[in-house]
Formats: sequence, C-alpha cells, structure tokens
Amino acid sequence: MPVPPAIRSLQDARDLTAALPGPDTEAARAAAEREPRLTKPPGALGWLEELAQWMAAWQGRHPPRMEAPRVLVFAGNHGITARGVSAYPPEVTAQMVANFEAGGAAINQLCRVAGAELRVQALDLDRPTADFTQAPAMSEAECAAAMDAGFQAAQADADVVCLGEMGIGNTTAAAAVAHACFGGSAADWIGPGTGVTGDAILRKVAVVEAGVARHRAAMTDGFEVLRHVGGRELAAIAGAVLGARVAGTPVLLDGYVSTAAAAILEAVRPGALDHCRAAHVSTEPGHRRLLDRIGQAPLLDLHMRLGEATGAALAIGLLKAAAACHAGMATFEEAGVSDKD
Amino acid sequence: MPVPPAIRSLQDARDLTAALPGPDTEAARAAAEREPRLTKPPGALGWLEELAQWMAAWQGRHPPRMEAPRVLVFAGNHGITARGVSAYPPEVTAQMVANFEAGGAAINQLCRVAGAELRVQALDLDRPTADFTQAPAMSEAECAAAMDAGFQAAQADADVVCLGEMGIGNTTAAAAVAHACFGGSAADWIGPGTGVTGDAILRKVAVVEAGVARHRAAMTDGFEVLRHVGGRELAAIAGAVLGARVAGTPVLLDGYVSTAAAAILEAVRPGALDHCRAAHVSTEPGHRRLLDRIGQAPLLDLHMRLGEATGAALAIGLLKAAAACHAGMATFEEAGVSDKD
Repeated sequence: MPVPPAIRSLQDARDLTAALPGPDTEAARAAAEREPRLTKPPGALGWLEELAQWMAAWQGRHPPRMEAPRVLVFAGNHGITARGVSAYPPEVTAQMVANFEAGGAAINQLCRVAGAELRVQALDLDRPTADFTQAPAMSEAECAAAMDAGFQAAQADADVVCLGEMGIGNTTAAAAVAHACFGGSAADWIGPGTGVTGDAILRKVAVVEAGVARHRAAMTDGFEVLRHVGGRELAAIAGAVLGARVAGTPVLLDGYVSTAAAAILEAVRPGALDHCRAAHVSTEPGHRRLLDRIGQAPLLDLHMRLGEATGAALAIGLLKAAAACHAGMATFEEAGVSDKD
Repeated sequence: MPVPPAIRSLQDARDLTAALPGPDTEAARAAAEREPRLTKPPGALGWLEELAQWMAAWQGRHPPRMEAPRVLVFAGNHGITARGVSAYPPEVTAQMVANFEAGGAAINQLCRVAGAELRVQALDLDRPTADFTQAPAMSEAECAAAMDAGFQAAQADADVVCLGEMGIGNTTAAAAVAHACFGGSAADWIGPGTGVTGDAILRKVAVVEAGVARHRAAMTDGFEVLRHVGGRELAAIAGAVLGARVAGTPVLLDGYVSTAAAAILEAVRPGALDHCRAAHVSTEPGHRRLLDRIGQAPLLDLHMRLGEATGAALAIGLLKAAAACHAGMATFEEAGVSDKD
C-alpha cells in the first residue's frame, strides 16, 4: 500500500497508520554489537544504552546522531472552556503564542539550553473547536487539516522531534480522549491542569463524562475520538507522530496532552509509537496512568506540568548524552583497559 | 571559630564541619519572589523551580548562573580487592584514569555534552589502602591528605561541582561506610558493583561485616569511619563537599560511592549536605537506601551504575535549564499574558 503524501482525510491517516515503516534492524544490530565493547561494565549506562540503540533503529543509521533536535509546539483553542474547566481565560493561548514568538516562555529557554530549533504553529486560534458536550469538536475536514499540519511539520529533517502544545482547556480534551480510548471512569483521567481545584475539577469530570457519552457510538476508532473530543493541537501532534515515522525521525513525547494525542495511534495500531519515547511524566495524575496503558516508561520525573514541550526539550540532553557515549567512547581494546575477569 | 584553610588532620575536618557557612537567604528570597511572576502556572516547572532557588541560595547570588560547571573525578585503589570482591582486576583503576586522560571514557563524552570542565585526580594509585578486614584502611595522615586534595580541588571557582570517582573495589568500601554510619545489616548495603554475582556477593557481605565489626570501637565519628573502612577517593569527595561549601559552590553528588563519601558529613552534622543534590539514583541497591537516610530525592533515575560522575554530569543539563528558565523567562506583565482568573 503506498504511503499517502499528506493527510487529506481521516482515511489517509488510517492508511498511513496501517503502512508505518518499521525500525532499521541493521542499524540497531550495529549499535547492539558496539555497546559491550565500550569501556564500562555491561549495562552500566542503563537507559543511555537503550536510547542509543533506539535512536539508531529509528534514525536508520549507525552511529545515531543528535546534533539537530527540533521542537514543535502546536496551539489550539477549545470551545469547552465555556464550561469553566480552566484556571486561565482562553485568550491566554494566543498570548502565550506571542510569548513563544518573543522568546519569553519556558520552552524558549529550554530550546536554547538544548541547542534545539523551536517551531510554533498556531492552528486557527480564532476558531475554537466546538464544545464537545454539544457537538463534535471538529468536522472531519478540520481534524484532517490539523493532522496534516503536524504531518508536514514533522517531515523536515531533524535528529529528533519533540512534540508539545499550548491550549487553554486542553487537559480536558486530553482526558476525554484518554477516557474514550482506554475506558475507566472519567475521574481517572482528570487533574488540576493549569491549577483548577474544587468545583472546577467536578465540572471537568462532568464535561468529560457527558462528551464521551454523547459521542460514544460515533467514536469508532482513535481518529474519530480525536475529532469528536480532541482538539486541533492534539490532531497536529498525532499527525506529527505519523510524519516523523515516515521521515525516519525519533520522537520525544511531552506531557499529558501530547501523550494523549499520540496514544490514539497506539489504540489504533499497537506498535505505532515504537519510534516515540515519553520524555517525562507530569504531575497531572492521568499522565502516569496513560503511560502505563501505552507501555511507556518516562525518562524524567521532575514534577513538572507545564506542557509547551518543556519536558521533551529537557530530555534532549539525555539523547545527546546517549549518542555521544555510544559514538565517542573508547573500546576496551582501543584504551588498553582489562575487561571483566 | 576560624575556618581552617586546609585539612591537615581529621580535627581540621571536624572544625570545618562545625563552622560551615549557611545559605544566602537574600538571594534565595529574590529567587522566591521572581518565580511566581514568570509566565507559567505556579509550580508548573516543578523541581526546576526548586533548583533555581537552591542554586541562588548556595551560589550566593540572584539570578543563579550555570555557565561554568566542573566535574571532579577522584581515583583510588583498595587493598580489599585481595578478597575477591570485584569483577575487574585492580589495574583497571589506573587504566581507566589513562582512559579519562585520553578522552575515551563515558565521563569525557558527558562533560563535552554538558559543557563542563573535567579534572581527574589520581590519589596514590600505587599505594592501595590497607585491607580493612586486617587494619585501618588509612592512617590519619593519609586520610587527611586525601580529604585535603578534594578540599583544595573544590576551591576553584565554578558554578557547580560534580563529584565522582573511580576505584576498583570501592562499592565494598562504600557499603562498609554506609553500614558503619547508618546501621542495618551488611547485606542491606551490598550490591553487584561493576557486576559481581553469587559467591562474590557473599564475600562482599562477609568482608563488610568483618571490617565494620573489627573497627567499630575506633569509629567514633564519620571521619573515623572514612579512615578505617573508606578509601582515598571517598575521603577526597568528603573533603570536596566541605571545600565547595566554603567556596560558595553547589554540589551534585553522583552514585553510591560518591553519596556514601558525602553521607559521613551528614552523619557528623545534619544539614552539612544542604548545598548538595543527589544527581541520580543508581541501580546499586544500597544507593536508594542511603539517599533515604540522608533525605535526598534523586533528580534522575536512568538505571545507571557506572560512577565516574556520569550521573552527576547528566544532571548539569537540568541545572542549566533551571537557571535559564528562572533568569530568561518573561513575567506576566512583560509578556502581556493574563494571570490566573
């Protein structure tokens, strides 16, 4: 089946997901063969060793490189904010996009530290998604367009792409996506987001319950979940995960929203996220539950909950370290170091 | 009490420990006041926020800086290796020092990625410590000299010092130090080290039990523990922790051996490690137990167990990120972003 060059419909996304390329087993084998020859006890670099093999497998080259990381931040607005589910007014989405563009946000500083290029893409901020308790969040065309924005953005050459988001109200959308895909009770997937408490938490639970119940029959797969209760930035992230896979680029997922968006692909096709790693686990309680469901162990746990790809950008340093150790260390033979007794 | 300018005896180390300077409360307050004005929900950067305040407090300036990190690796040899406690022969200590000097070890690659200066100090490798099941590992003069090497090395100006080690046999010494200072059974503090299994593990347990039992009456404080069952690189690390405190430099501790060396100070005087953070938790099982005893939550858990300051060097990136966010982010006012409802 030919891989569609763009996502013009949800069927294109389905076709892409069915035809995902696998890892480069030759590159992975070359990494596995080099690792035990390096001057350290076997396994002593722990996850750095695994990351080197994972990068080799999904970049399709040995040794893997981590010189050109890129961070993609997608922004969207949510009709569901009318229900009082967020601690901040919806204008903050556009204000924060302006802050990203001016260099004043956390992600700007983290990209500078990581030597990563930052690209921010605002998705129709003046057209929020529909309140999903009343109607599907997006039409099929809207959802496909948002997915394609991500798919195209992830095609550009990079050694890794970090996928993050900004969108007041989007932890509510993420909770609805997770609840629809992975079951449990709505409350299992709800947390404070940017900092709501008390009644607002109860409103989030009620809204997620109502939205998922309303659209359950129509949500026949992960893509329909994304369309009915997700949002444009979530759709873009799902599209970017597909785009990166096609382009041979490993992915670092960020927090709860980023992971929920990607998780719909794992729900559609197990293994669809094998080229992705969860960069961190946030304090949003649904995030750890979601990572467990998709079988991902987070690289970092720094008690963060900001989004913007901040957790993913922090993990770039770990990938750089893994690539540098794997490529740059001397072997026992080269260094004249005695191997294990 | 005047602070001794050098460690010429264990009494100098005791005097230094009694007279440790405290944090800069003005700098810490300036950091605490700036943090909630930055464009993010309060607390959303989690530990990065705490790290910024911690750096300000112990660097004695606001904003904190992380432009000149330094990694100190101390190497020592251990008479206890005659007991068959390690998977590698003792020559490997010197061979690895040569590997550090040639740039071929993991720590060399990690320092390059972190932009950190690496200084390696070999401590009398041709004179191993005594087998502590037979005699004190070091004389008082030997122990003080090794502590002073670390104390002086940590006086040079740096934004943080990472303290690591190399020494075949030194997880056995670390286990003996931890057992002597914090009790429990010897087996609580024993693990595979570079990779021993089966009988060698049982030998490690027996050796630690015997050494601690033999010297128990003489080990009247943490410094005497260091001298009787520790090693030169452990003594240097303890000295470096004191030197960094005097110099106004925060410290990143590395793995089990580095933490055990520093922990003797916490046993002598609670709060002596307030300017230190545990960079990571290794897979050596005693490490997490030891971190719990000294009240440190590790920043990273990447299943590593290499030593060489590798875990500490990896965490430099987190400190750079914390400093960059704290100093570089726009405030709500500057960015024109609406604050919380």
